[in-house]
Amino acid sequence: MTPHDARALDRGDPLAFAKDRFRLPAGKTYLDGNSLGALPVATAVRVGETIRHQWGDDLIASWTGHDWIEAPFRVAAKLAPIVGARDGELLIADSTSVCLFKLLTAAVRARPDRRVIVTDAANFPTDLYVIEGAASLLGCEVRRVPAGGIADAIDADVAVVTLTHVDYRSGAKYDMAAVNAAAKAAGALTLWDLSHSAGAVELDLNGSGCDLAVGCGYKYFNGGPGAPAFLFVAEELQKELHSPLQGWMGHADPFAFSASYQPADGIGQYLTGTPSVLALAALDCGLDTFSGILMSAVAAKSRALSQLFIEEVERGCGDKVELAGPREPDARGSHVSFAHPHGYAVMQALIDGGVIGDFRAPNLIRFGFAPLYNSYAEVVRAAELLTEILNSASWDQPRFHARLKVT
Amino acid sequence: MTPHDARALDRGDPLAFAKDRFRLPAGKTYLDGNSLGALPVATAVRVGETIRHQWGDDLIASWTGHDWIEAPFRVAAKLAPIVGARDGELLIADSTSVCLFKLLTAAVRARPDRRVIVTDAANFPTDLYVIEGAASLLGCEVRRVPAGGIADAIDADVAVVTLTHVDYRSGAKYDMAAVNAAAKAAGALTLWDLSHSAGAVELDLNGSGCDLAVGCGYKYFNGGPGAPAFLFVAEELQKELHSPLQGWMGHADPFAFSASYQPADGIGQYLTGTPSVLALAALDCGLDTFSGILMSAVAAKSRALSQLFIEEVERGCGDKVELAGPREPDARGSHVSFAHPHGYAVMQALIDGGVIGDFRAPNLIRFGFAPLYNSYAEVVRAAELLTEILNSASWDQPRFHARLKVT
Repeated sequence: MTPHDARALDRGDPLAFAKDRFRLPAGKTYLDGNSLGALPVATAVRVGETIRHQWGDDLIASWTGHDWIEAPFRVAAKLAPIVGARDGELLIADSTSVCLFKLLTAAVRARPDRRVIVTDAANFPTDLYVIEGAASLLGCEVRRVPAGGIADAIDADVAVVTLTHVDYRSGAKYDMAAVNAAAKAAGALTLWDLSHSAGAVELDLNGSGCDLAVGCGYKYFNGGPGAPAFLFVAEELQKELHSPLQGWMGHADPFAFSASYQPADGIGQYLTGTPSVLALAALDCGLDTFSGILMSAVAAKSRALSQLFIEEVERGCGDKVELAGPREPDARGSHVSFAHPHGYAVMQALIDGGVIGDFRAPNLIRFGFAPLYNSYAEVVRAAELLTEILNSASWDQPRFHARLKVT
Repeated sequence: MTPHDARALDRGDPLAFAKDRFRLPAGKTYLDGNSLGALPVATAVRVGETIRHQWGDDLIASWTGHDWIEAPFRVAAKLAPIVGARDGELLIADSTSVCLFKLLTAAVRARPDRRVIVTDAANFPTDLYVIEGAASLLGCEVRRVPAGGIADAIDADVAVVTLTHVDYRSGAKYDMAAVNAAAKAAGALTLWDLSHSAGAVELDLNGSGCDLAVGCGYKYFNGGPGAPAFLFVAEELQKELHSPLQGWMGHADPFAFSASYQPADGIGQYLTGTPSVLALAALDCGLDTFSGILMSAVAAKSRALSQLFIEEVERGCGDKVELAGPREPDARGSHVSFAHPHGYAVMQALIDGGVIGDFRAPNLIRFGFAPLYNSYAEVVRAAELLTEILNSASWDQPRFHARLKVT
């Protein structure tokens, strides 16, 4: 495909207008929105207003006057159509890791006769660490199994199955409904980490029978570095499960200052301390970039971008890299990884050339496609540069590697 | 004291210059900085730059390029002289409640032969809720005792004594060194919540023998609504205690993406998920308002302001209100509460008149004095307005109460 052909695809792209919702640096092809989403146009002004006019002018009165107190619910409601859940099942809180700890602990305690947590042995590291820490606290066993072995690992001892929906390296996507069904059949709960899927692939948490989920605000949701996370608790579980991380913001009546804890009805009990109002304002702008956009269109563009990238890379330099993930679009999230023995140096050369992806040890170069702001032309440009770099003769020269391996 | 006398005190105030570090709303006397600190002049610009130039322009490269990764440590280092601790003992993370959960759980698990947590029955509610939740998870007993009974309640079964240094209602301040000594003698650890004291009173965490502490970023530290919290772990305990809230940011090598958790050396292990970079930038500006200022001067002004307020109120309307806290300056933090049967309506009338304090059920009107930006003139004005309101004959008229009781 020529750059000309790619521009024609961009002209026909029904989501092309959404790129104007972002402030992207000139001259760069940013394919790392799966690590840190781009800056929405609205964010700096909105956060500035929150600082100057709400905090600065109205001070403490803003908790009610500007309804800061409702922000974790108000912002979460914008997620509902994106992930296929009801408003009252979603909440913005803490970090993904802390949310995972809350829900995992709550889930295990709700199944006291079951002492096993099942997870993918290659789950995202922070998930594994959270699981390990919670299991040690709860006196549970962690069953780490390969991706293909999840269903077989779910037996009557399993309290919770917790998985990351899309693998951060390969982009491989779990069949969420199938895992949920297998867990349900065995009486276990499911807890999904949606960090690498929400905002880029179609999700139907209700329709696929999800019990619990958490996810990240700073990747495809463009909430800014370290944005607060979100959590999901299916309505029918909200009376049964209780977070052990009890704080005043999750109390039924925080400002009654009562001496004993009474969890709020519904999803609000998963709040703990006072949330960052500035970080919530930024995440709100991030979610507004999805306004009026159907996730079916986002997911279709994600598939088209990543499929085009694979084709172009394999056509140009397929003899030098190996696709490290599913070839079938429906089996993937919105990023694509290739293995190369000098992956780190290759990615540095790409970045030097204006194409920003990511390197994941030991040998993966990773490219994320954010359907709201990435274009077909960018995909072609990235594949072209990668091809040019890998076809350069100097890859056999140790000196060339040394030059690129600047850390 | 006349307003003229008060202005003379302000002219002689060695901290008067610090008020220019804040952007305070005109025409208001803000005595609620103990609930939400005022906006520093630098914050909006700094957060705006972080959004536009760091996130917007440099995107993912900012984690190293703008050293976001070190921000929780870099900002925490500014706390060291304010609380009397070493750099490496302090960290910015999460919310106060989540930090409390982490340290409380770590402390109890470090004393496995002891199953009791001692606290003040009138501790701040979120502290009580966190303690209750953690105790339930850990299978511990919580011994809730009156303020005067702490020392007697510490026996060989006690793992941790956890208290709020300054009471959020009365302003009563614990003798930290005495409690620490009693706990140490019994082999128990101490965990202090400094939310209502740090930044307003002199602290010497090291000198007074503190083991563990947490505190708030949005009160006297002016970090903005819901600013991240801080935590302190004494150096000699850092190898012994481990947070069960394990996440990748607390790993010894987060970007190695190893499958098993290896806590970072030192205070860094208490990080969990990715922290909010925007919230950290705002808190950084909040802490910069203390730059070059000795806490002995801050504490001296705090005592002088609150003492003047008590004298002026009691002189003007001492027959109508009752001081609800210590009279002795050294026994208090930086806020003063008075009891009045119609406290809620009184505070509404004060706010209508431009004096912003707080109401705490059932009958307390509370006034916080932030030595960096509150003046003697403001103290006198607040006492005058309170006197005027309470001496108004219409307090006997139910209609007057109804008018004021607007919620």
